[in-house]
Amino acid sequence: MSNAGKRVDREVLAQRFRQFIDPEYVISDDETLKPYECDGLSVYCEQPMLVVLPETVEQAQQVLRICHQEGVPVVARGAGTGLCAGAMPHPEGVVLSMAKFDRILEIDTLARAARVQPGVRNLAISEVAGKNGLYYGPDPSSQIACTIGGNVAENSGGVHCLKYGLTVHNLLSVDLLTVEGERLTLGSEGLDCYGMDLMALMTGSEGLLGIVTEVRVKLLPKPEVAQVVMAGFDSVQTAGDAVGAIIAEGIIPGGLEMMDGHAIVAAEAFAKAGYPTEAQALLLCEVDGTSEEVHEHIDAVESLFKRLGATSVRTSHNEEERARLWQGRKSAFPAVGRISPDYYCMDGTIPRGQLAHVLTEMDRKSQECGLRVANVFHAGDGNLHPLILFDANVPGELEKTEAFGAWILELCVEVGGCITGEHGVGVEKIRQMPAQFNDSEIEQFHRIKAAFDPAGTLNPGKGIPTLRQCQEYRSLDKDIEPNAGAAAQLHDHGQGGHHHG
Amino acid sequence: MSNAGKRVDREVLAQRFRQFIDPEYVISDDETLKPYECDGLSVYCEQPMLVVLPETVEQAQQVLRICHQEGVPVVARGAGTGLCAGAMPHPEGVVLSMAKFDRILEIDTLARAARVQPGVRNLAISEVAGKNGLYYGPDPSSQIACTIGGNVAENSGGVHCLKYGLTVHNLLSVDLLTVEGERLTLGSEGLDCYGMDLMALMTGSEGLLGIVTEVRVKLLPKPEVAQVVMAGFDSVQTAGDAVGAIIAEGIIPGGLEMMDGHAIVAAEAFAKAGYPTEAQALLLCEVDGTSEEVHEHIDAVESLFKRLGATSVRTSHNEEERARLWQGRKSAFPAVGRISPDYYCMDGTIPRGQLAHVLTEMDRKSQECGLRVANVFHAGDGNLHPLILFDANVPGELEKTEAFGAWILELCVEVGGCITGEHGVGVEKIRQMPAQFNDSEIEQFHRIKAAFDPAGTLNPGKGIPTLRQCQEYRSLDKDIEPNAGAAAQLHDHGQGGHHHG
Repeated sequence: MSNAGKRVDREVLAQRFRQFIDPEYVISDDETLKPYECDGLSVYCEQPMLVVLPETVEQAQQVLRICHQEGVPVVARGAGTGLCAGAMPHPEGVVLSMAKFDRILEIDTLARAARVQPGVRNLAISEVAGKNGLYYGPDPSSQIACTIGGNVAENSGGVHCLKYGLTVHNLLSVDLLTVEGERLTLGSEGLDCYGMDLMALMTGSEGLLGIVTEVRVKLLPKPEVAQVVMAGFDSVQTAGDAVGAIIAEGIIPGGLEMMDGHAIVAAEAFAKAGYPTEAQALLLCEVDGTSEEVHEHIDAVESLFKRLGATSVRTSHNEEERARLWQGRKSAFPAVGRISPDYYCMDGTIPRGQLAHVLTEMDRKSQECGLRVANVFHAGDGNLHPLILFDANVPGELEKTEAFGAWILELCVEVGGCITGEHGVGVEKIRQMPAQFNDSEIEQFHRIKAAFDPAGTLNPGKGIPTLRQCQEYRSLDKDIEPNAGAAAQLHDHGQGGHHHG
Repeated sequence: MSNAGKRVDREVLAQRFRQFIDPEYVISDDETLKPYECDGLSVYCEQPMLVVLPETVEQAQQVLRICHQEGVPVVARGAGTGLCAGAMPHPEGVVLSMAKFDRILEIDTLARAARVQPGVRNLAISEVAGKNGLYYGPDPSSQIACTIGGNVAENSGGVHCLKYGLTVHNLLSVDLLTVEGERLTLGSEGLDCYGMDLMALMTGSEGLLGIVTEVRVKLLPKPEVAQVVMAGFDSVQTAGDAVGAIIAEGIIPGGLEMMDGHAIVAAEAFAKAGYPTEAQALLLCEVDGTSEEVHEHIDAVESLFKRLGATSVRTSHNEEERARLWQGRKSAFPAVGRISPDYYCMDGTIPRGQLAHVLTEMDRKSQECGLRVANVFHAGDGNLHPLILFDANVPGELEKTEAFGAWILELCVEVGGCITGEHGVGVEKIRQMPAQFNDSEIEQFHRIKAAFDPAGTLNPGKGIPTLRQCQEYRSLDKDIEPNAGAAAQLHDHGQGGHHHG
């Protein structure tokens, strides 16, 4: 990508940054810029003008002030593990990498809180807090690599978020730099604070409102015991009903995950976890807490599964068995990768009561458009992750896949759910925003955006479609059917490519 | 208060409203307007121009459109039980009472959710949901009267919010009318939604951003068992340390309340709950859950209290005993009302680890300025409710009291806490906002306000001070000392009067 015609010259800007940032951390050559082109969803890529890696808040502040002065877009970046192209660079913009902000500043065992820089890896917090019997709750599957700053940007969840909440529920406060480089502290060490909850507003806002420079998170005591019950069912409906029944029983499992037939077979072939490959649906229900509580709830879950027609029920009785039962679930994504040249991972949320309905509808549509779907997801909180299996080398199949994906998200909205559970909107889901929100709501998002960033230089083009785009997308929706093969229009960014392939 | 000189004529406006609202529900005579002058904090009162009580969303929408057209301020009102004058009318404005929106529209036992209108009383939800073994978590002490719309406006808490969260943590979605009468739905039935969390932003925003017309709340299963341990201590420090120790143990009590010596004596005289009147501090620690879990935790709490030097420990063994132990706490406010002509109820939040320090400092200051303080509060979440005892008939004592109150809130901020826990800012705390927030943060609140309400006609003058006021307040702070008696300047609204007297 050439920089000719750019309003701001790459090297001139780089030189300005190098006056206060270690020159090594101001990247302007094409080769070194390469790794910053995409996030975990490698379908949307773009070379940035520059990448800077400040090491102090003052340096970050200075970068923001210069970019604000020059009208240069700024895209914040953590570990780049995001799945919605939220961190996709702007071709005329600066990528502000927070990778050097990687220190855990304080573990306060009495307050059960940690103060960390945004570039700290999610799992690193639990590793350090673990010495004091504590851990950080939200556990996205990328937790070994993803950073807490990115978790704030996307309001990440994970297997445990049914019981322990999303990122926003596990934060105390967030320090922020505005687009103009002003420092704000949102939230407080206290449980509640002044009502206009800018911390919650910021959490999940995908770098559109400001740059996170420090985060205080809540820590949880490690549960005394955890046990998992695995149950096979002969239909997704029965399994879906069992999910509702557990919650209705008043049990809040630490994790409640579901896999369908395709996913079970793939995972078992890969991980040899002892899954019942003849089952059409599998539930993994983990209960954690004190040993008395866990035993009581495990008994209740087992008998509930049996009563509701589970074809097989197995419970872990030690850590090794528990790890083995989870192994299949944890390797489900790579396992599915082995049974299909490519897959497209969706992320939508539905009310729990709609599980059986949505899974059945998805199955019907899957047969109709000739694309297999494997379902591996957080059933307890109704957060679906359908994996559409396809082959990017078959002409038109990617487009069919994306149209099918859009259809799934719109179904989620139709039954009262959301176009994203924990992966965010970014570039990938911007097309579905008008299915979820009316024009007044979209307009309100723009006003909020403008209240933080009037010139719109923070992560431009992400998250919120323009009202004109909304109209376009809505009228396109009427024409698009997965079988019509006309879905190439979906590609606003025209990158093509495939997912995790 | 005369309406002469008003831009909009009261009767003309009333007539316009009466064209689409039952004329009986458009109140314009001084006598009938009277009950709408104050909220639960009766110190700030104002007669509104008009009160309207729409019965449908369309009527409310129409009221908003007309007011927007005419530039007339709109102040939403629930039950008027608020404690920060957040619902104080505007003399040239309309009070939009949501009292007629009093229907519970749906209890969904599978989704464990209720869909209710904003004028439904907090307790009414649990009463109806109770038939299915469910209840609504947040329990402000006014729950018999206060409405869910008001709870959303103030992000209300209660005894159980340590374990079950504030209002915001118990909501699924909120329907809203903007100042222009546009309908927005914030949040969703799903667990998570698009990242820019306008629902959380709205919760606690005190009617500054929009009018709530429908709320979907989460319901919780009633716990199988609840038991409470009461423990007396010979100092607030020891009790404060015990609070930290319980949480550090990994126990999250359903409620963890503290009372100091003044409060214990007053409550015992009033309620005869069997409290140890010689103790300097008393803790009530309730644990709820399954019977196994509760027994295990109650044992742990009892031995922890004993180990940490409790002078007396008593545990409830049936519902009658439990109710009796709580009786003293529940009647503590009226009980304190009997030992002092007047009292001023504060509301601030501090990190739990600062409890002992803050209580000791408060005691020192109390002696210094010759005003008694009784403490009755949510210790587990560090939400203080100091009651300053005074006599409004003694000249200068109200002013001394208010200055002492301001000093307490600033102490809360100093140790990392907040100027309000669950009562809100409204008119009462607006003076402390600059102690909590810097100018950039205050400015950001104004921008958010403007993003919803550019003309500023929704609940004007509440919540956010102007930057000029911030400067004034900050410079006044330097001069004010409780003993200086110069605190009359605190009264922006010059109403005088006293609290709960």
